[in-house]
Amino acid sequence: MAFDPQELRFDAQGLIPVIAQDEATGEVLMLAWMNAEAVRRTLETGRVTYWSRSRQSYWVKGETSGHTQRLIEMRIDCDRDCLLVLIEQTGPACHTNRRSCFYTAIREGAEVVIAEPME
Amino acid sequence: MAFDPQELRFDAQGLIPVIAQDEATGEVLMLAWMNAEAVRRTLETGRVTYWSRSRQSYWVKGETSGHTQRLIEMRIDCDRDCLLVLIEQTGPACHTNRRSCFYTAIREGAEVVIAEPME
Repeated sequence: MAFDPQELRFDAQGLIPVIAQDEATGEVLMLAWMNAEAVRRTLETGRVTYWSRSRQSYWVKGETSGHTQRLIEMRIDCDRDCLLVLIEQTGPACHTNRRSCFYTAIREGAEVVIAEPME
Repeated sequence: MAFDPQELRFDAQGLIPVIAQDEATGEVLMLAWMNAEAVRRTLETGRVTYWSRSRQSYWVKGETSGHTQRLIEMRIDCDRDCLLVLIEQTGPACHTNRRSCFYTAIREGAEVVIAEPME
């Protein structure tokens, strides 16, 4: 079946959550959002492109930082309201310079930082 | 720092997206939603508990199907608006009886089913 980004289920803001996973290691790096056009651009260019809710603009990941995400494969969930992108991440995915945005764990009721910024 | 679920950043509906990842294999199994009380219950009981947007009720994963999720670790992202739960999944996570909800890939512009239901 041919894939049409418009046939995904977007929320009231026209957005869908996207999980970015390191294709090589399996590490979950971040969650961000796309609209239909960002999905189309990502598939067309192979450069993962989100919709920035704070800036209200397209956001080609790494365009300014150099920490790009190359798309290996895009997957859709059963409800068509979430995407998983398997990617090749250059450098850190997180704006704190950590590899993953999920660097804080809850252990014994407390928040613990479990990863340091990359060199 | 002591963890308080109320200090997460919830959306306008009081919800936060939660990525469930198989702790043993690294496979991303599903994305669902929690409110602050669901986060609290998940940490307290070790049984992953979501908020069902369609049923508008708490949803202890696997309570009726037996396909439970045991919490190994909960992580928070840098923006505090997304959670990652590392879990031990019993049986399939998906209501289609597949291990993961992300069983459809986009390949050469078409949707391809890449996983079959479990026995």
